[in-house]
Amino acid sequence: MIKPIIWQKTKLKILDQRRIPLAVDYIICSTCREVAECIGNLSVRGAPAIGSAAAFGLVLGAQELKGFPKEGFNHAFREKASNMLQARPTAVNLSWAVERMLRKYESIKEKDLGELTGGLEEEALTIYKEDIVGNKKIGQIGSSLIPEGAQILTHCNAGALATAGYGTALGVVRWAVGQGKEIHVYVDETRPVLQGARLTAWEMKQEEIPYTLITDNMAGMLMQKGKIDLVIVGADRIAQNGDTANKIGTYSLAVLAKYHDIPFYVAAPSSTFDLTLTSGEEIPIEERDPREVTHVFEQRITPEGCSVFNPSFDVTPAGLISAIITEKGIIENPQKENILSVMQIN
Amino acid sequence: MIKPIIWQKTKLKILDQRRIPLAVDYIICSTCREVAECIGNLSVRGAPAIGSAAAFGLVLGAQELKGFPKEGFNHAFREKASNMLQARPTAVNLSWAVERMLRKYESIKEKDLGELTGGLEEEALTIYKEDIVGNKKIGQIGSSLIPEGAQILTHCNAGALATAGYGTALGVVRWAVGQGKEIHVYVDETRPVLQGARLTAWEMKQEEIPYTLITDNMAGMLMQKGKIDLVIVGADRIAQNGDTANKIGTYSLAVLAKYHDIPFYVAAPSSTFDLTLTSGEEIPIEERDPREVTHVFEQRITPEGCSVFNPSFDVTPAGLISAIITEKGIIENPQKENILSVMQIN
Repeated sequence: MIKPIIWQKTKLKILDQRRIPLAVDYIICSTCREVAECIGNLSVRGAPAIGSAAAFGLVLGAQELKGFPKEGFNHAFREKASNMLQARPTAVNLSWAVERMLRKYESIKEKDLGELTGGLEEEALTIYKEDIVGNKKIGQIGSSLIPEGAQILTHCNAGALATAGYGTALGVVRWAVGQGKEIHVYVDETRPVLQGARLTAWEMKQEEIPYTLITDNMAGMLMQKGKIDLVIVGADRIAQNGDTANKIGTYSLAVLAKYHDIPFYVAAPSSTFDLTLTSGEEIPIEERDPREVTHVFEQRITPEGCSVFNPSFDVTPAGLISAIITEKGIIENPQKENILSVMQIN
Repeated sequence: MIKPIIWQKTKLKILDQRRIPLAVDYIICSTCREVAECIGNLSVRGAPAIGSAAAFGLVLGAQELKGFPKEGFNHAFREKASNMLQARPTAVNLSWAVERMLRKYESIKEKDLGELTGGLEEEALTIYKEDIVGNKKIGQIGSSLIPEGAQILTHCNAGALATAGYGTALGVVRWAVGQGKEIHVYVDETRPVLQGARLTAWEMKQEEIPYTLITDNMAGMLMQKGKIDLVIVGADRIAQNGDTANKIGTYSLAVLAKYHDIPFYVAAPSSTFDLTLTSGEEIPIEERDPREVTHVFEQRITPEGCSVFNPSFDVTPAGLISAIITEKGIIENPQKENILSVMQIN
């Protein structure tokens, strides 16, 4: 199985997704700051994967404070947590994981360092394992929406690489393929960072799931020609009313799907819901380095000094989403009432 | 002024648009076949530019036949014309120009070689000059649709580089800027060949027209945020009913514009209309080398052996087009009757 992160007691190995598929190398992080850097520079990306990585990062953070005077420990650990929160703004799984680690920390902070770091490590491992279990549940539940012979369009990478290891949108695809369904996946290349061309294509190839790569602007034509039966994507943050932030380009796909009367599904664990936000307008949207647009790997593709707009995410209003698939069940007609009722399931 | 092709009596210099903006070099063609190759490999692209280049290519073709026995000349020249027609399938300006050159040839074929090549050269120069005059007329006519302060989205390159030298969609922008209107152009990068990132951004920079480059999948978000006042694109072939083939991704933009109630304009000379086709379904759509998708310049961006779909164009139904701007006038509500009535204007 593809493992985007590997925990090794005092180290977190992070698969460097910036280089895939040209190279498959792990970065070895032994500090909390190194993990935060890997999140910031996209070595590890995908909302659930960011959450798991951040949790392990805080275990490293606590380990780093070995020998720290008791009175300063609390402040120093919270500062590390606060720095981790700054690594990226949009995916709520980051703050969800950090806050969960802080709650654990609160409950055991009076213990000695060995017990404290052990307790934090246990919590991080739980977050990690729960994500894989949750992903498989999403796959199992969501596969009921995938007809035999489906031609599926996906955007970005919501696969094993974006999670602890199975995938949300691609988890649904994996499960349906595992059931023996004949499926064909159209993969949006997903500019500027090319998570589709580099990561999703690589995952599909590894697992021998039939796929065809397209540029993002070909999706409309495929829908026009009747080649797409459904769209399924992941999510970075879902507000109380169902508005969903996901990789830039998701909103365009949702509009195109609506126009062509094609189901548009979001697959995400409950950790991606931010029930403190009333609507998607409150979701912070990260803008990243123009170089992501002006360069592909090291190759410049624009005139020098080219002016660029580079938002990493957009927000799809709930009205364009046919259903949100979670590990707790499928939320059809995603709106506040329906979301809250599914989120209350334990 | 930017000159995509330069005629030099016995040579056609073609600006190698594959390398822009990394290098600005001309390819020197002295045979008809070399011109056809430049059209096929995208050194020269853009429907009107292809038409002009093909016309000059046939002048070179006639010159090559110097000393050819009279009885074989006709067959050999027509074979060159036929080969030129195969260079690319979608843009009708190619066959329009070749057929116009063949009509000229028919009318003077009994003359001696000097007069024959001179007559063909005159016709090619007329096609070339008419295109520039027509583009400026399109600019002048179309600028009435551009409000002061407009934020304009364009796709691909329908500028000087795509024509004999002024531009269709960007001709409208140029004219409006020349009138003193404050305009901002959002430039779709236009994967896979990046005509927006490489060519349109380069033209905007050269002429100091304010612009912002985006990836193709950002257009929807900008419309959602109210940042786009109108969309204007070129065309490769327009059927009798107004259905328009243009660069892949145009259809998606037209759907997005309709959804957001934003005007969607096509700017094209009358040479781009193919009145022999009743609808866009009859327009042949070129599929190109998967390498255009799997590589950017020489850099591979996908797993090896990645399966790819790479159509170069899509067809936007007339119902999504607010108006077609031609050198003969603006065709609002483009449908057969309205198109034929404007096309009949001399």
